[in-house]
Amino acid sequence: MNIEAIISSLIEGDRTSLARAITLVESNLEKHQLMADEILSACLSKTGKSIRIAVTGVPGVGKSTFIESFGKFLTKKGKKVAVLAIDPSSEKTGGSILGDKTRMNDLAIDDLAFIRPSPSAGTLGGVARKTRETILLCEAAGYEIILIETVGVGQSETLVHSMVDFFLLLLLAGAGDELQGIKRGIMEMGDCILINKADGDNQLAAKKAKQQFKNALHMFPASDSGWIPKVETLSAIEHTNIDWLWDTICEFEQWHKQRGLFETKRNQQNQFWFHQLIKDKVLDTFYQTNKSEIEQLEKDIEQGKITASKALQKIVK
Amino acid sequence: MNIEAIISSLIEGDRTSLARAITLVESNLEKHQLMADEILSACLSKTGKSIRIAVTGVPGVGKSTFIESFGKFLTKKGKKVAVLAIDPSSEKTGGSILGDKTRMNDLAIDDLAFIRPSPSAGTLGGVARKTRETILLCEAAGYEIILIETVGVGQSETLVHSMVDFFLLLLLAGAGDELQGIKRGIMEMGDCILINKADGDNQLAAKKAKQQFKNALHMFPASDSGWIPKVETLSAIEHTNIDWLWDTICEFEQWHKQRGLFETKRNQQNQFWFHQLIKDKVLDTFYQTNKSEIEQLEKDIEQGKITASKALQKIVK
Repeated sequence: MNIEAIISSLIEGDRTSLARAITLVESNLEKHQLMADEILSACLSKTGKSIRIAVTGVPGVGKSTFIESFGKFLTKKGKKVAVLAIDPSSEKTGGSILGDKTRMNDLAIDDLAFIRPSPSAGTLGGVARKTRETILLCEAAGYEIILIETVGVGQSETLVHSMVDFFLLLLLAGAGDELQGIKRGIMEMGDCILINKADGDNQLAAKKAKQQFKNALHMFPASDSGWIPKVETLSAIEHTNIDWLWDTICEFEQWHKQRGLFETKRNQQNQFWFHQLIKDKVLDTFYQTNKSEIEQLEKDIEQGKITASKALQKIVK
Repeated sequence: MNIEAIISSLIEGDRTSLARAITLVESNLEKHQLMADEILSACLSKTGKSIRIAVTGVPGVGKSTFIESFGKFLTKKGKKVAVLAIDPSSEKTGGSILGDKTRMNDLAIDDLAFIRPSPSAGTLGGVARKTRETILLCEAAGYEIILIETVGVGQSETLVHSMVDFFLLLLLAGAGDELQGIKRGIMEMGDCILINKADGDNQLAAKKAKQQFKNALHMFPASDSGWIPKVETLSAIEHTNIDWLWDTICEFEQWHKQRGLFETKRNQQNQFWFHQLIKDKVLDTFYQTNKSEIEQLEKDIEQGKITASKALQKIVK
């Protein structure tokens, strides 16, 4: 495989080279990792110019339809759009999200769009690292908007929150039941909440839900930047308020850039990831080396035989 | 110092021995650490029988007055109450919280109450460990209710959330400004929200705020246990609804015990702390060993010279 050729054609926007580079990033073979690193290093100066957007919502909220609708809206404006996913728990949810590209018929065949399913195996940390590096590759290939899909039910949102500029939460009207799938703490990550499926008979309920969420968010603390999360209804099927969403994202970008917060946040995220990688690597090594002893101590702690401090001493000695 | 004597009189409830044991836990001398471990190990079978309650709220919300009022209510019922604090950022906030016991005149001289200021120095991880072990010592000395005060502005709440059964958030009416001190994510930890200072002219505003928070929480996901956070107004000065709070805490305890969730959560917390200690220890060692190299790489990342992955490789090699 000619790495130089992949790099130069990837930077020119060649989709096949991009796909190949991502495959190298996703591979667990050391040989492939080395090639991936070479490509990433060469691409680094071309990265960082996109808007990175998380799209989160439980299954059934209409994420695929939304991404298709929003993605087409953007490509019609001439924007290059990449769609990625983080889904480490694919065994539980019965398959990788975005695995079924047929749910995004129009976007999948759009020349300006690039859709890549979630890496199908590995730890959350590993999947997150791969997704993060895939973002960089997509940016180097000229993609201006990166959408990262998550299912909103686990730890993945905390990690995805640390790799995006804008966190979008999709909900349905009639909060009670629909919310049960969303974990506590995720609501407060949202820079924007969209009440999806605001069409047909559901319009009135969606409008009511919008007002309720607006009121609710008003009672909760603002983000560190001072940005107050926006709430709006949306119909992915009827394409209602898709333009509003795009205006809001642009406003968000401007708002943060004017205050110097956009770059600050990106730098904080880069540092976060560096330390996250150190943490994963160092702890993985430690746990693998002391596996059986740690498991025994976990049992002793459960049975109240030993304090956590004492257990620690036994391991580090 | 006679460790055996400290242990036996601590278990009999002697306050001087308890205070001494806590001083050993808080000490950074290895000699003291070893003694502290011996005491903790001997006490372990006597621990776990209290209700551990976090009391969080920004400065000015009336935490001290509340703790004095609630504490006296409990000691009048014959309960033994210990009051601790987590405040690692004492440099920022201008001194350890609870440092000024005179703010709790009545409770400080109550035979059934034990007040201990926050350890004044050290990392958040270190302070948290010390507080956690202090909880165990207080339990061994027969304290039935442990109140742990935090200021609600930082990372300490996540850690304190992992060492308590019940998380209490104190707020004021007129959400907007008062909330600015509370960090995002903390609201969703609350098992109960109290609108304090619901007295005099403020009563109506407090009642309105109560309803608004109730509505707001209804829009947010429930906790993993299914417990829906309670909201009530309270006057620490006029002692209004202090009895309601105690009933709620008892209801909470019953509710979780009936479902087997109380012990499950405690065990999860014990395991969490074990792994947290491992993490702190292993990472501290690694960072100390590679300090200058890591700092240089942080700069390279900031300047876009290197990816986080590549930086990791440079260190682990």
